[in-house]
Amino acid sequence: KDLTPKEKLLLKAAEKAIKHAYNPYSHSFVGAAVLTKSGEIIAASSIANMSSSVNLCAERCVIAAANAKGHRHITKLALIARAETHDYEEPVTPCGICRQFLYEIDMITPGDLIVLCSNTKKTKIYRLTLEELLPYPYSRYKKPAK
Amino acid sequence: KDLTPKEKLLLKAAEKAIKHAYNPYSHSFVGAAVLTKSGEIIAASSIANMSSSVNLCAERCVIAAANAKGHRHITKLALIARAETHDYEEPVTPCGICRQFLYEIDMITPGDLIVLCSNTKKTKIYRLTLEELLPYPYSRYKKPAK
Amino acid sequence: KDLTPKEKLLLKAAEKAIKHAYNPYSHSFVGAAVLTKSGEIIAASSIANMSSSVNLCAERCVIAAANAKGHRHITKLALIARAETHDYEEPVTPCGICRQFLYEIDMITPGDLIVLCSNTKKTKIYRLTLEELLPYPYSRYKKPAK
Amino acid sequence: KDLTPKEKLLLKAAEKAIKHAYNPYSHSFVGAAVLTKSGEIIAASSIANMSSSVNLCAERCVIAAANAKGHRHITKLALIARAETHDYEEPVTPCGICRQFLYEIDMITPGDLIVLCSNTKKTKIYRLTLEELLPYPYSRYKKPAK
Repeated sequence: KDLTPKEKLLLKAAEKAIKHAYNPYSHSFVGAAVLTKSGEIIAASSIANMSSSVNLCAERCVIAAANAKGHRHITKLALIARAETHDYEEPVTPCGICRQFLYEIDMITPGDLIVLCSNTKKTKIYRLTLEELLPYPYSRYKKPAK
Repeated sequence: KDLTPKEKLLLKAAEKAIKHAYNPYSHSFVGAAVLTKSGEIIAASSIANMSSSVNLCAERCVIAAANAKGHRHITKLALIARAETHDYEEPVTPCGICRQFLYEIDMITPGDLIVLCSNTKKTKIYRLTLEELLPYPYSRYKKPAK
Repeated sequence: KDLTPKEKLLLKAAEKAIKHAYNPYSHSFVGAAVLTKSGEIIAASSIANMSSSVNLCAERCVIAAANAKGHRHITKLALIARAETHDYEEPVTPCGICRQFLYEIDMITPGDLIVLCSNTKKTKIYRLTLEELLPYPYSRYKKPAK
Repeated sequence: KDLTPKEKLLLKAAEKAIKHAYNPYSHSFVGAAVLTKSGEIIAASSIANMSSSVNLCAERCVIAAANAKGHRHITKLALIARAETHDYEEPVTPCGICRQFLYEIDMITPGDLIVLCSNTKKTKIYRLTLEELLPYPYSRYKKPAK
């Protein structure tokens, strides 16, 4: 695994955030952490709802938490999850909603937003750009050249 | 343009559905049509809301309309849009929510669900699979081999 | 129970639509039917997704199906559900997303949109307006007087 | 106006958060702040997206930010907004999605979660419970007696 020391810290923060995930329904718990352009690490967790259409994934939660502190330029996002009764052997990747949501953050961030998707044991990690996660993007506006 | 005669009919149905699109807010109107496994064409249109988080895209509407008639095996979906005051020069592609939604329909349909994305004048068309639209899919379950 | 004959037909249509509901995840199945201003009955069913934030409730599906046929003036909507292994003893009511979505349909329909919420056995039914379901509505625009 | 000193601070925090709201599309900016059971004030702001179905309202953002810090028991939430070119004369209230989302937070919080909805100038304020905002709640589970 070729994570940089900073990326290891980021993934560690995401992993630690799992404990705040709320899901009494399907018992799946996700943590996310972002590295801001200015170098700060901020973490957050998934929040479920009895009406599951309203579930808020960890990726959107962590962007909300970063933006609350005035950080909207995000260079990296780490993602990790576990179920109540077992680990995920494969890396968890963002759902379509979160890809769309993150695409906008990538668009306004100078440089690429890199998404690190990890399995529970941190033995398998994808390193993906938004272009890879959401090709042929829906957009009324051209993505500005960076 | 190399659409088959059936695909031309499908895109025509999507184009015709634009007139039922509802959007008094941002004045963007989208039509979609699906070809069911059994050969039927069903069309539907986008529905906006004053709380835009609740907007329902044409892709989800047309799957809802097809499923209402008992059709959940969908082999093709055509997509086309226009704004109130101008045409879209580039093909409109599904947003992240709809890709996630369609991924499931693709997963349960024998064979691939092909998405035809057209610009308003039908001079430029993308032909995309869900694997192309949503790579590295979020999924708790393996996509069954087809 | 004081349903009119037309309302009984409507609820029957919603009940029948349950069989098309798709939910291999939480195994809850919802059917909905609408009565259009022009007197037509249209039914549809809930559609789940492995990413549950993308789930589409029966209420939104049935409005999509009605709008696909050019019907956006809806006077009544009937709602009924069952779980795979048991009946719901209490009437199922719309989630917050669907209330917001239906509020707009009510706003553009001459007269009130009445929502009939039934338990599985049709022994207990609520008859609710959107004003009752979504008081103090979020709205940038005043609801037009009807 | 009969806000308590603590509530005035809370609304002030929500008002201050407006400056971090992101909306280059419809130019409406919302700030929210919560008072946690333990007495902490946390604020956040709305985040728009080019695909407006993915917009994240300030209410959901602030719960995400609070939960990220381990706070899920929320006793008060203040809400305030302005448009780019004008003030809102009427208090802004939560959309249906946020009501559903907040209902769960109210359900798990000992005591009621009170929502303070303000107009831009803070001259008109609603003080609402979730029971008032989302009557006849959608719920598979009974709300526990508090």
